[in-house]
Amino acid sequence: MRKSLRVGLIGTGFMGKAHALSYQAAGSVFDDISRPVLHAVADIDGARAEQFRNQFGFQKAMTEWRDLVADPEIDIVSITTPTLFHKEMALAAIAAGKHVHCEKPLAVSAADAQDMMLAAEKAGVRTASGFNYLKNPLLKYAREMIASGELGEITDFNGIHAEGFMADPETPWSWRCDPAGGQGAIADVGSHIIAIARFLLGPVSQVFAQLDTPFKTRPVRQGAAERKEVGVDDIARMIVSFERGCSGTLQANWLATGRNMQLAFQISGSKGTLAFSQERMNELHYYKVGENSRSNGFRVIESGPQHAPYGAFCVAGGHHLGFNDLKTIEMAEFIRAIDQNRAASPDFREAWEVQRLIDAAVMSHKDRSWLTL
Amino acid sequence: MRKSLRVGLIGTGFMGKAHALSYQAAGSVFDDISRPVLHAVADIDGARAEQFRNQFGFQKAMTEWRDLVADPEIDIVSITTPTLFHKEMALAAIAAGKHVHCEKPLAVSAADAQDMMLAAEKAGVRTASGFNYLKNPLLKYAREMIASGELGEITDFNGIHAEGFMADPETPWSWRCDPAGGQGAIADVGSHIIAIARFLLGPVSQVFAQLDTPFKTRPVRQGAAERKEVGVDDIARMIVSFERGCSGTLQANWLATGRNMQLAFQISGSKGTLAFSQERMNELHYYKVGENSRSNGFRVIESGPQHAPYGAFCVAGGHHLGFNDLKTIEMAEFIRAIDQNRAASPDFREAWEVQRLIDAAVMSHKDRSWLTL
Amino acid sequence: MRKSLRVGLIGTGFMGKAHALSYQAAGSVFDDISRPVLHAVADIDGARAEQFRNQFGFQKAMTEWRDLVADPEIDIVSITTPTLFHKEMALAAIAAGKHVHCEKPLAVSAADAQDMMLAAEKAGVRTASGFNYLKNPLLKYAREMIASGELGEITDFNGIHAEGFMADPETPWSWRCDPAGGQGAIADVGSHIIAIARFLLGPVSQVFAQLDTPFKTRPVRQGAAERKEVGVDDIARMIVSFERGCSGTLQANWLATGRNMQLAFQISGSKGTLAFSQERMNELHYYKVGENSRSNGFRVIESGPQHAPYGAFCVAGGHHLGFNDLKTIEMAEFIRAIDQNRAASPDFREAWEVQRLIDAAVMSHKDRSWLTL
Amino acid sequence: MRKSLRVGLIGTGFMGKAHALSYQAAGSVFDDISRPVLHAVADIDGARAEQFRNQFGFQKAMTEWRDLVADPEIDIVSITTPTLFHKEMALAAIAAGKHVHCEKPLAVSAADAQDMMLAAEKAGVRTASGFNYLKNPLLKYAREMIASGELGEITDFNGIHAEGFMADPETPWSWRCDPAGGQGAIADVGSHIIAIARFLLGPVSQVFAQLDTPFKTRPVRQGAAERKEVGVDDIARMIVSFERGCSGTLQANWLATGRNMQLAFQISGSKGTLAFSQERMNELHYYKVGENSRSNGFRVIESGPQHAPYGAFCVAGGHHLGFNDLKTIEMAEFIRAIDQNRAASPDFREAWEVQRLIDAAVMSHKDRSWLTL
Repeated sequence: MRKSLRVGLIGTGFMGKAHALSYQAAGSVFDDISRPVLHAVADIDGARAEQFRNQFGFQKAMTEWRDLVADPEIDIVSITTPTLFHKEMALAAIAAGKHVHCEKPLAVSAADAQDMMLAAEKAGVRTASGFNYLKNPLLKYAREMIASGELGEITDFNGIHAEGFMADPETPWSWRCDPAGGQGAIADVGSHIIAIARFLLGPVSQVFAQLDTPFKTRPVRQGAAERKEVGVDDIARMIVSFERGCSGTLQANWLATGRNMQLAFQISGSKGTLAFSQERMNELHYYKVGENSRSNGFRVIESGPQHAPYGAFCVAGGHHLGFNDLKTIEMAEFIRAIDQNRAASPDFREAWEVQRLIDAAVMSHKDRSWLTL
Repeated sequence: MRKSLRVGLIGTGFMGKAHALSYQAAGSVFDDISRPVLHAVADIDGARAEQFRNQFGFQKAMTEWRDLVADPEIDIVSITTPTLFHKEMALAAIAAGKHVHCEKPLAVSAADAQDMMLAAEKAGVRTASGFNYLKNPLLKYAREMIASGELGEITDFNGIHAEGFMADPETPWSWRCDPAGGQGAIADVGSHIIAIARFLLGPVSQVFAQLDTPFKTRPVRQGAAERKEVGVDDIARMIVSFERGCSGTLQANWLATGRNMQLAFQISGSKGTLAFSQERMNELHYYKVGENSRSNGFRVIESGPQHAPYGAFCVAGGHHLGFNDLKTIEMAEFIRAIDQNRAASPDFREAWEVQRLIDAAVMSHKDRSWLTL
Repeated sequence: MRKSLRVGLIGTGFMGKAHALSYQAAGSVFDDISRPVLHAVADIDGARAEQFRNQFGFQKAMTEWRDLVADPEIDIVSITTPTLFHKEMALAAIAAGKHVHCEKPLAVSAADAQDMMLAAEKAGVRTASGFNYLKNPLLKYAREMIASGELGEITDFNGIHAEGFMADPETPWSWRCDPAGGQGAIADVGSHIIAIARFLLGPVSQVFAQLDTPFKTRPVRQGAAERKEVGVDDIARMIVSFERGCSGTLQANWLATGRNMQLAFQISGSKGTLAFSQERMNELHYYKVGENSRSNGFRVIESGPQHAPYGAFCVAGGHHLGFNDLKTIEMAEFIRAIDQNRAASPDFREAWEVQRLIDAAVMSHKDRSWLTL
Repeated sequence: MRKSLRVGLIGTGFMGKAHALSYQAAGSVFDDISRPVLHAVADIDGARAEQFRNQFGFQKAMTEWRDLVADPEIDIVSITTPTLFHKEMALAAIAAGKHVHCEKPLAVSAADAQDMMLAAEKAGVRTASGFNYLKNPLLKYAREMIASGELGEITDFNGIHAEGFMADPETPWSWRCDPAGGQGAIADVGSHIIAIARFLLGPVSQVFAQLDTPFKTRPVRQGAAERKEVGVDDIARMIVSFERGCSGTLQANWLATGRNMQLAFQISGSKGTLAFSQERMNELHYYKVGENSRSNGFRVIESGPQHAPYGAFCVAGGHHLGFNDLKTIEMAEFIRAIDQNRAASPDFREAWEVQRLIDAAVMSHKDRSWLTL
């Protein structure tokens, strides 16, 4: 008989839905883990919480997140609110002895992220953060290829996360533009490519960054004449060195008109190159040195059951995984870590490392100089 | 309070898993439908049935599918066994007053499919068949573009479903090679491209077909010296005319080395062209006549919330849907049809129409002549 | 000291220019052949002929093609006029003892093509026809792979040539619509994919065809109310069997809105698959059976010096060849055949074989039955 | 009667051949310019020079480039030797009153490039440098779109030129590795992406660069145990600001395993985005804001006669241009500038500007700080 773990979810937006769906799926797609049970959902908007309860089958709906955190029946708290609220919620959940999943970016600063990480480690609870793109079976395979030396000596990482949702200068000012809520594109989208770079190549030791805000002001609301200053970056351009010795570039951009998910990288090594874009998330492009030169070229590897854990979703290749499937893998791995009483990956410590690089980049930009982490 | 519908699943293979996952997801992704509840699973292998019960949370596991069909608590029976067994099971479920989902191809012949369809219609139960690729939001949009005249007068449909899982002549003989179990590639993969052609352009009125079996025999099992005759087609090539007036080609192939899911079409009209491949299922390529000739070209439309029901899965574009998501839409639409007491699409009638074209193609091949449906 | 061969060119249109440029380039790109010298150009429009003489450096310009054919200094006659005029011109040139290059399709019928072929063979002159796409180094490599067995047993050829230049039903009637001038899309664009199929897989033994004319009439001129009947096909759909044993499909279409050069094929064999489109003419996509399944996939082979005769144009890979380069290879090979006193490929005999298949397809369409060549 | 201009070519390598072919083609493809005549070729290897004379039809072959420069019949001197020799040859040709085409990079330093530029401007001769990729009709169109405001306010330029020809650490040391001969990847391939950035967006005002040499030594020759220090960069990573106000990144890399010609950029503006790679040089990808959101997406613009001067090569779209065609446009534009007695583009002044940025990047790297040009 499989054990259950009761989940309390805070927030009912984009990520709230993704969490609800993926906890539910995780218990069925994977049969080696405790089954997550949707126990309670909290949203300041009671009707919205109730709607979520009904849609996803939570047993309770609440308006006070503190009630949820205090619920003794809950094993896991999932935090999907805006970044500004993460710290307070996570610390309360940790204090209540819950395992905590908190969406990325973990906090508005590395210092806050560190507080959260240390509190969790002290309390001995398990943590996770929502860097879902790392869960792609093809990225797991890429990491394995690099680790095993199949690409030879790595010489370059060229990474970017570009989207276009702020590309119109008349898109209104929002909490995303407020430095009190954290950094801009570098944190919002950039944290993903940072997490990928670290996942594949390990820690970054040095960074030089330029933060760029082409659109200095935005209307206070759609169509308003009044404008408000944008306090964060629209675009971040970083040159980084990895502890392992190689260097690369990381770019974040939310002004990239027409791009919905250009989360892409190219990694070159002396024996091979990998290229990937989340725009075609079921394809990994791979060039392997040493083949017959007449018939060699970049191969389009399609994800399939030979790339674990794709097989848990489908026994045949060519049947694409989607975004919610990555989220399902993320939740399953978090549950598995809880079951096995070991750290999940990425946990708060890893999310703090991402945040440290973001903060270092901001400082590098201000100082106009290289910064060593 | 949402109503529930109890599901009984027969079969625990590739499609059994897809059904279990997608019924479960459907009730959460979509909140306007009754919630499907995984009630019972039947498999001749009791351990396997029990494993399924545990993994997906079915309330009961059985070894006798007849017990499942007879269970008065069950509202829906889902059939995912090899084609040969579909008819008997479906007729029994219909006789028991159940709504029935039966995987494609519906039956080993159009006559059998017709029996199943007529029985269901007489009994007044709702039916569905697993042409999941039709559920892609981009295909729904394509159909809408065609219906609204945006492509002008349609002049051509060029469709194919090619995979490579039988491409090695030493891949052993299996039930798929036995004509008693239905046709070959034309039914196994071809039914998908037929279903898409009908979905987009409507009924086919005439067909000319060549069925081709390059590998006449296969080993009785992996590595065996003894070989057995392949009684079905490896490749089917069809020229078809649609009732609406245009013509096209449909090809099915399970010898296409290296292809995992080349389910692709190009539709040309006097005002536009659409091109699609399931290999990149979140992209629809569209050329629109009448734009500035210097900047015109095929556009890569990425699926997003503007293409219903993508938005039920994710509020932002660029977050791919996967295969299981299509299956979830399929189940949700089936449930919705039951809720609303109207025919689902595709139902057994539509699945029978697909089968009629397959049978007509086989006859055309034998007669070496055009065949009018 | 390199020998020279004097060229006389009839016609100054699209192909006239391509011939002038490519004869000139051929002598410099390739240093193992006689150098073609642009001696005379003939066009019924004297100003146009004179303009050509000045632009390309021909020594003479003429209005009478018969004068050109009779010019004793000329070694090679190149015919680039509409198909209707090919036969008369070619026979006159052959009678005058010239080597003859005649654009494709060779003639308005197989019978005429045969007359031209027999006359040339009897006269012992060398001939060529303009199937330039065969000259792509990547297609030469594809042919070599097939011939050497690298793809294993070939099971399918799926070929198409689709363009959109007649896709608008208001595009006026022209000589291309007149059956007196030859067939329609099947000859105009279809001859290319036929030539490629034969180049790669050898002779076709049987054909079943449907010819389709969605737009039955067209305006007599742009914007005219008066309309004229289209006497030829807009689309041709063929199922073919090759002498070597395998089958396939060939499609021709000049109504494919938005397509400029969808001359594409997929060839599957038991050990590999090749996919190509002239839309990306410097790429050949190749799947090879037997590699590590985790890292296997279609490779994008980029043309380079390892694919002869690319190296004659450029010593480094990745520097694309263009259309005129293919034409240059075509002319060089024709000159080389003349130098070596052996048949060029494709010559009139090969062009006649292409025409035979076109005529057979037309007959198959009329008879609604398979036709054996 | 068209005027002729006599060309003297120094060097018979990769670029020597490209020059010989493209001068010859330019006079025929374009009829509005003087016709270049291949007059003399010089190579230190007399047999090689003689071979070139014979292959391309030069009237003279020489071993002393000084003789060529002194030849009073020559109008244009083309320099295609290694960078180290450019300055001496160009100054001599300028002193002799010749118009000079010199391959890129123009010189081993900006100072040398400036000397060459000033000498030419003082002498009143016309100059050109071989940034052939700028000649792509699609890049000309991109520039026009940007200049006309079609992309709105430009917010980012993300450019790279990556190839893999030095990716193997055992590829021997060569003159390219010697700082006496100029910079490394930043000059060899990086100059192309710099030239493109300037062509599209204008001057760069600031640069921060990291130069990277992962492989510090290389064998003195293939297979040798003895190794020699690499004195230049393998990879260059730059963040740049343009005078017009926006910023971007420029990367150069000759260690990019498997890449033959990844000369690529993405330019985002508030109203549109362009993406291009020389790997598919006949395609420009364009996203345009403001279209119907359901059918919008990046369009694949294929080059055609609507993109001048494509039409000079071919009257129909979809017939690809190749590398040598770009070189032909380059030579035609140089000849046209001479004919019209005005500066060509890019001339030595532009090539010097490219070199200035390279030198600034090198200094920025050494100083680990932003550098203002």
